[in-house]
Amino acid sequence: MTPPDAALLRAYAQLVVRAGVNLDAGQELLIEAQLDHAPLVRAIAEEAYAAGARYVDVRYSDAYIRRALAMGGPADSLGWTPPWMVARLERAAEKGAAVVGISDSSYSDVFEGVDGQRLGAARMRDFERTWLRAVTEGEVAWSLIAFPTERWAREALGEPDVDRLWDAVAHALRLREADPAAAWEARLDELDARATLMTERGFRAVRYRGPGTDLEVGLIEGARWIAGRETTKRGRDFVANLPTEEVFTTPHRLRADGTVRSSLPLSLRGKVIEGLELRFIAGEIVDARAERGADVLQAELATDDGARHLGEIALVDDSSRVGETGVVFRNTLFDENAASHIAFGSGIGWAVDHLEGDSQEELGVNESATHVDFMVGSPELEIDAIEVSGAAVPLLRGGRWQLRG
Amino acid sequence: MTPPDAALLRAYAQLVVRAGVNLDAGQELLIEAQLDHAPLVRAIAEEAYAAGARYVDVRYSDAYIRRALAMGGPADSLGWTPPWMVARLERAAEKGAAVVGISDSSYSDVFEGVDGQRLGAARMRDFERTWLRAVTEGEVAWSLIAFPTERWAREALGEPDVDRLWDAVAHALRLREADPAAAWEARLDELDARATLMTERGFRAVRYRGPGTDLEVGLIEGARWIAGRETTKRGRDFVANLPTEEVFTTPHRLRADGTVRSSLPLSLRGKVIEGLELRFIAGEIVDARAERGADVLQAELATDDGARHLGEIALVDDSSRVGETGVVFRNTLFDENAASHIAFGSGIGWAVDHLEGDSQEELGVNESATHVDFMVGSPELEIDAIEVSGAAVPLLRGGRWQLRG
Repeated sequence: MTPPDAALLRAYAQLVVRAGVNLDAGQELLIEAQLDHAPLVRAIAEEAYAAGARYVDVRYSDAYIRRALAMGGPADSLGWTPPWMVARLERAAEKGAAVVGISDSSYSDVFEGVDGQRLGAARMRDFERTWLRAVTEGEVAWSLIAFPTERWAREALGEPDVDRLWDAVAHALRLREADPAAAWEARLDELDARATLMTERGFRAVRYRGPGTDLEVGLIEGARWIAGRETTKRGRDFVANLPTEEVFTTPHRLRADGTVRSSLPLSLRGKVIEGLELRFIAGEIVDARAERGADVLQAELATDDGARHLGEIALVDDSSRVGETGVVFRNTLFDENAASHIAFGSGIGWAVDHLEGDSQEELGVNESATHVDFMVGSPELEIDAIEVSGAAVPLLRGGRWQLRG
Repeated sequence: MTPPDAALLRAYAQLVVRAGVNLDAGQELLIEAQLDHAPLVRAIAEEAYAAGARYVDVRYSDAYIRRALAMGGPADSLGWTPPWMVARLERAAEKGAAVVGISDSSYSDVFEGVDGQRLGAARMRDFERTWLRAVTEGEVAWSLIAFPTERWAREALGEPDVDRLWDAVAHALRLREADPAAAWEARLDELDARATLMTERGFRAVRYRGPGTDLEVGLIEGARWIAGRETTKRGRDFVANLPTEEVFTTPHRLRADGTVRSSLPLSLRGKVIEGLELRFIAGEIVDARAERGADVLQAELATDDGARHLGEIALVDDSSRVGETGVVFRNTLFDENAASHIAFGSGIGWAVDHLEGDSQEELGVNESATHVDFMVGSPELEIDAIEVSGAAVPLLRGGRWQLRG
């Protein structure tokens, strides 16, 4: 494997520490990575200390250890979380730490031959619950990023061409701009303007129409549309996804009707799901199919009741840097920013946290231990907003953003 | 780097799981490793699940992250332990888990240019204290092992010849015997016989004489000599070091007089210490020098009062498989089993735990947050036991074991 270019790594690390988690002096930083991400993890640790981090606490995971558990571990250990992992996140929430999470490929080659049901069960539920709570309640400043590896290049490009993958990732992340952080500020301003406009218009629903798709999703009255910039409850800005090209909200959990078909593959628990098709009645998934990876999909939908309701809808247009690369990354962080997407599972509490009165669930925000994004956007997909009057307002046509202020 | 031979890795993993920590069905296993050890970690995880492990919990460390801390972290973070690391070990102790620790080189190339004092301070004291307590009180079954890496080969052999290092390690570990575990049983029987004889003879002291060395170390009346096999307080046998070729005990903390010179380099906190020379009066180190690495040595001796007293003396003869390789491994686990050695810092509580009445400190067992082994043995070093009568009994001459039952 070609060692990544040092200057590029450094630019990436700086972007993550500054524009990403916006690290404060004296703050602790947690990094969640795979073994293969070490070059970037090290660069981030150096930049974090340079920015005044109190401590950088790295947890390296190893897909082969998860494989060993899924293959040979006792059934009642599969979903277990070592208690220290929960304690570590709880402390991060309590202290208002920053968290960087790094992904790459789906590691589907590592999980080849592992029973889909056992693999689906081999996930740390207490860890996921604790993480979702910390994020939903705005306790931590967090950024999800990705690191080009040979394995990811094989999955995304069909060949282990890490240099080509780095080029695509660098383009999507604006890493070769003279000032990547400034380029992101400008883009985030544009996305913020879209989100503000969407919120101000107070639409009742969003409607999707295209090949295999005819779906209407109801919105929560008064819920905000959000772009890349978010704020912790302590008032610290951060960018939760790098890259980010979406504006998104939390839909009403009981108001989705129709059928939707995924437009890109998605990686889930080490497997790839393709040709996903979901049918909804009154917000509930009443039928779920997939051409590939159906077993992992069914296991995920069985997580809890909330897994069968929607938690997010997100709009992405063709000015996306991710989309411009033309690469199907087979990594949700990237692909969800190339195309409009929808997620089943937990909703986005901070989209309604300014609404008073009822509980989140009563407001219509979904609750679940999972949150799975799948891509629906394509040039053929028409997306409209539906006004309270019932009138349709075009949002996306031929992949292009339509709504102007 | 040549990928390690799969059959050899498997033999190694089996030896560690069976003869090493002697894993019980339903027991949890912790693995403490560096990133570079992944091939062996994965093999151990598979063997552990095959042996009925309830869960295998791996913590991968990265020397470059410690370097980033030592280079750029705030001074009061250097000695800090993230609380989850303590909680993880405390749970392991409470549950009677097994623990495998893996080492390789000193990573001195990584720590090149880092200030010795800051590097010495960049250690997790609470973690070390918790670990020493778990070990001293027999809470966990543990094995320390090592994994041949390119970096270790460069340090030990002067060239990155991992294959040659594997050969030496495989010889020392009896990995190419038809039945490595059985070969170890036979060797452990021999060492046990030596230890039993030493205990039965009830010597008063041990005396070292050779180039640069003239030292007498007083023993604790009734303290046991121990060989490779140990037992947890729950009664589970394990082998704490693989390889192990030593018989050892905990000397009296107030009874060492004279001067001792190390015969081999030792790795400490990422630095190499060579030409170590210590002078003792009434058990206390009153003068400490080193030709190389003196700053790390001084920082270590400043850990606490106990760091300046002895915690272990160990006898190794020339039938050692480690010694047979002729390699100076520059890894304490191996080198201490090639040659007789002494440790300053914490004593070995379980060598006296059958004595009743006084506290361990009153009995003469040293207490400290550190424990550093250094090698003194060589063909030129004469080691005698001193009987209560004052008579000298030869233990080692020309590197050969002398005492017979």
